[in-house]
Amino acid sequence: MLKLYCAPKTISLAVVTALNEGVHWEAIRVDFGEAEQTKPEYLSINPKGRVPVLVTPEGALTETGAILEYLGETALPNLVPVDPLQRARMREEMYYLGTSMHVNHAHKMRGYRWADQQSSYDDMQAKVPETMTASCAYLEPLIVGPYLFGTEPTLADFYLYPIATWLESDGVNVAAFPKLADWKAAMEARASVQKAISDGFTG
Amino acid sequence: MLKLYCAPKTISLAVVTALNEGVHWEAIRVDFGEAEQTKPEYLSINPKGRVPVLVTPEGALTETGAILEYLGETALPNLVPVDPLQRARMREEMYYLGTSMHVNHAHKMRGYRWADQQSSYDDMQAKVPETMTASCAYLEPLIVGPYLFGTEPTLADFYLYPIATWLESDGVNVAAFPKLADWKAAMEARASVQKAISDGFTG
Repeated sequence: MLKLYCAPKTISLAVVTALNEGVHWEAIRVDFGEAEQTKPEYLSINPKGRVPVLVTPEGALTETGAILEYLGETALPNLVPVDPLQRARMREEMYYLGTSMHVNHAHKMRGYRWADQQSSYDDMQAKVPETMTASCAYLEPLIVGPYLFGTEPTLADFYLYPIATWLESDGVNVAAFPKLADWKAAMEARASVQKAISDGFTG
Repeated sequence: MLKLYCAPKTISLAVVTALNEGVHWEAIRVDFGEAEQTKPEYLSINPKGRVPVLVTPEGALTETGAILEYLGETALPNLVPVDPLQRARMREEMYYLGTSMHVNHAHKMRGYRWADQQSSYDDMQAKVPETMTASCAYLEPLIVGPYLFGTEPTLADFYLYPIATWLESDGVNVAAFPKLADWKAAMEARASVQKAISDGFTG
């Protein structure tokens, strides 16, 4: 059975919700409150000190986007468009989320990754509402509805979901992005997302 | 014919070198010296104001990782491992490069994306040697040789190449990472990379 190292309120929720779409799996919760992800036992599993980590029969796999792609190929083919250009569009959004929007968010609480001074952390934190609002403004016109690319969700929808749960606390005026709000409601109507919420993964 | 919006010394070199592996393509150079990527004409092509952008018969595609995957599916299948777990390992490295290592580098010159004060930019810039060295230390033991995953390069090798050309100016002691140095030499022995260098894409 697949196992997933994961923690509430983190990007690992993307994989939790995707797994809930139809994979038999087990959660191994990493206690961020105790900084468990920084300790030797966890670093032996993932030297990057991050979640998620998917434990497959052939070894541990890291990086949210790569794990989602692996699940799409091995267990959840319905979440991957058949058409090559549509797959490319899905990946374009996944890479945007991973390289830009999630990175914007990370500057709120993880400034120590890229700077050493408290004044820099404060500066970074103050800019998060602006950068996350800009990310929402980029996404908003791209949303076809009800899901990102139309009538069915893809891996990209699951990648976006945790990030969408952070927007209010990141200082984004979510009312300014009605398509994104409708998209989030559509995701939250799915049993997979409801189960992740009731299991406490949204905090 | 495929066209690529690209600029020297940027991550677009990943796509330039991959295209040179066997695709008939044309470069459209974006003049970063003139900040062309921030002007309305370019923003109408890519509202994110970044390179690369691949112009396909069906529209423009952004995000380095997504473009590489598209080329792997449509034109360069030899750069994608056949085995699902090996494809997952390739994507794990690609996502690491996009979400972590390239982001570390970007804090040297692009601090304004995430902060507003000069003191923050200085602080970020000072930390780049440390973060890029840590990224090299993560990659070093993973390199099978001569390429990342063995005898043939994959999309991940092409994603890493531009980043590897930045290491010295990012303050990394490259002599401390002999496997990475050998890997870079193997890449630079390829005609595709040699052509990109002689075409001025490494600066």
